[in-house]
Amino acid sequence: MEYEILNKNNIVKYINSINNIREYFGSDDLYIDEIGDGNLNYVFIIKSIEHPKKALILKQAVPYLRCVGEEYPLSRERMTFEIRALEQFSKIASSFIPKLYHTSEEMSCVIMEYLDKHIIMREGMIQKTIYPNFAEQISTYLAQNLFKTSSLHLDSTQKRELINKYNSNTQLCKLTEDFVFTFAFMEHETNDEYANNHKLAKELFEDIKFKKAVLNYKYKFMTQSDALLHGDLHTGSIMLNEEETYVIDPEFAFVGPFGFDIGALIGNLIMSYTSHVALGSKDDYKEWILKVIEDVLTKFEEKFLFLWNKQEESSLFTKNYMHEYDLEDFRREFMLGIFQDSLAFAGCKMARRMFGIAGVAEIRNIEDEKIRDNAIEMTLEIAKMFVKKNNEITKVSTVLHIIKEKTK
Amino acid sequence: MEYEILNKNNIVKYINSINNIREYFGSDDLYIDEIGDGNLNYVFIIKSIEHPKKALILKQAVPYLRCVGEEYPLSRERMTFEIRALEQFSKIASSFIPKLYHTSEEMSCVIMEYLDKHIIMREGMIQKTIYPNFAEQISTYLAQNLFKTSSLHLDSTQKRELINKYNSNTQLCKLTEDFVFTFAFMEHETNDEYANNHKLAKELFEDIKFKKAVLNYKYKFMTQSDALLHGDLHTGSIMLNEEETYVIDPEFAFVGPFGFDIGALIGNLIMSYTSHVALGSKDDYKEWILKVIEDVLTKFEEKFLFLWNKQEESSLFTKNYMHEYDLEDFRREFMLGIFQDSLAFAGCKMARRMFGIAGVAEIRNIEDEKIRDNAIEMTLEIAKMFVKKNNEITKVSTVLHIIKEKTK
Repeated sequence: MEYEILNKNNIVKYINSINNIREYFGSDDLYIDEIGDGNLNYVFIIKSIEHPKKALILKQAVPYLRCVGEEYPLSRERMTFEIRALEQFSKIASSFIPKLYHTSEEMSCVIMEYLDKHIIMREGMIQKTIYPNFAEQISTYLAQNLFKTSSLHLDSTQKRELINKYNSNTQLCKLTEDFVFTFAFMEHETNDEYANNHKLAKELFEDIKFKKAVLNYKYKFMTQSDALLHGDLHTGSIMLNEEETYVIDPEFAFVGPFGFDIGALIGNLIMSYTSHVALGSKDDYKEWILKVIEDVLTKFEEKFLFLWNKQEESSLFTKNYMHEYDLEDFRREFMLGIFQDSLAFAGCKMARRMFGIAGVAEIRNIEDEKIRDNAIEMTLEIAKMFVKKNNEITKVSTVLHIIKEKTK
Repeated sequence: MEYEILNKNNIVKYINSINNIREYFGSDDLYIDEIGDGNLNYVFIIKSIEHPKKALILKQAVPYLRCVGEEYPLSRERMTFEIRALEQFSKIASSFIPKLYHTSEEMSCVIMEYLDKHIIMREGMIQKTIYPNFAEQISTYLAQNLFKTSSLHLDSTQKRELINKYNSNTQLCKLTEDFVFTFAFMEHETNDEYANNHKLAKELFEDIKFKKAVLNYKYKFMTQSDALLHGDLHTGSIMLNEEETYVIDPEFAFVGPFGFDIGALIGNLIMSYTSHVALGSKDDYKEWILKVIEDVLTKFEEKFLFLWNKQEESSLFTKNYMHEYDLEDFRREFMLGIFQDSLAFAGCKMARRMFGIAGVAEIRNIEDEKIRDNAIEMTLEIAKMFVKKNNEITKVSTVLHIIKEKTK
């Protein structure tokens, strides 16, 4: 099918051309609405009028940035990578990905499960909701996807085929290179206006040791092909409730460094924490966040190692090359590398949210300037520590200690 | 043109179908001979009978390993990557690549300059020939090609396009993974027969610290996309004389870690050195080799930094991100990383030549077992130091010191 921009008027015709979708609804009597919560793409909800519980989401990329318009062209190829990643992650860890009903790279379009009982995690955390299963679930998601798309699991041919599938996601990787690793740490027109003359921004932009370390991690982001990443795993890419966790929007997917997804998540959990500290939220919620950070890091490592221990051969390992007990040592050092990289990436992700183009709602929307600045300051203190000194941090408990120390 | 295996009988017809080759010879009266010095491919020399100085080399890949036969299938796609790399390196550093007259990915074939005044460097060094321009020339080759295919020079799109072009060179990368980083360090049927019960082999296969470090470098080889590599830059891939240096056979080309080509070269120079020490060759030749090792490492760094200093922007660097004088620091640390990785890869390359499938002639052909074992022992001592302790080595002078100490 030739590419065509979908809208409320032509969607019915389109979905009627897809057998399983037509059968799913069983009727043409559909309610269609655009739900404009994405910056990049068009998102529609399609509901059966007769049976409103029958509902699906249709997401389509247009050849420009939706929130700006046609004057900001952005190849709709990004949806190709999102589709591939959704399909790939579904194969590996299906319970954390919305069920896919239809995908079309030609139409840059995906039709999937409507998560009507779930909310975006960032909002849930602003509302101080506790998600008791989250750490358990997201650590499984991370361990499964990262391990099973890495050279510790795949053979050499599979790994190179994986890289081929995602390597051309250039535009979105470039957005990360620019906005996560560069512009937010220098005077730049894209930065938030309150960065101008802000004491903390000035300090950050002049912190040479921090900026040099960021360059190293930017380089790692660009050149280290560990595993298939979501590529933008902040709390806005997670939909959940007290039972279930779903990861959405993997349009930034590419084969990159292990620590990047973990770091994105940890960094965003910490920003939620610093915002709650600044706002004086109740201790039990703050403690829950700290516990989640601890559990995600600990459980990720346990689960990743569990998979690794079961793996007899891969492109890295050849049977009988080394004794099992010597490999354990190797694995431990390898995991420490992932852990420290995760902290460094968390630091980059946190710091860039302070003055860069894209803030996080829980901090940038704090109206009281003093409270907001306090949140920013605590966040930056932790971020700088992670970026500059991650190689001195070897334990999860130290991470928690740092967070607590810097938010006292 | 559809693929067809070329031989003495059908080559004339083939080259007559190529305008510039037909014009080059100006006559059908050609002398054609197979020169069987390659293991993987067929190589022919084509000479004008009337003007014998008019001569070209035709190299063609067949869908199997030439030296074994059709029972060892190996995709002829390897020539696709060789062609791409020859063309790419020719654009960057043309004076070190044989002039290309014709390339055809369909025919897995390249027709190029016949280097009749040059010999394979390994042979030249066995004959104790001094090449006064070599270090200057090969360091330029390395600096130009590595820098200009890296993220320090290319923009993000160019870099990802480069990776796309070479990422599917899976089979040859796999050969390196297996034969350079794995089988040569464990009991394996492909190892040389004199590895059996050899005391030094046994020691090597049980050196856990060495083998663990090798795993790290194997992982780096598989996942670190710094720059376009030759991929097999030993002294058998270099043709030279006292004036000129040419690099041939880049069929292993792929985007990998900076240090791999440099390490391959340094490792092979060191093996030439240890062989001459064991054989009791004259001091002036041994000293020349040491000087070459020193010069290659020093000049590579100088030339790479020279290019980098001139580079205003790249996918890594954004103008005004940092002051020039702070970048110098970053560059110095970055170069130290390349240096240390080069030593580690040199160590892997040296050690794998001792008992693995492919020995180096200057050591494996030593008939006197005691002398040969002495060369092996010295080589392994240096190799282990480089693999296990490269991160303690920060200066070129230390490299020379280690080589001298271990060959006393």
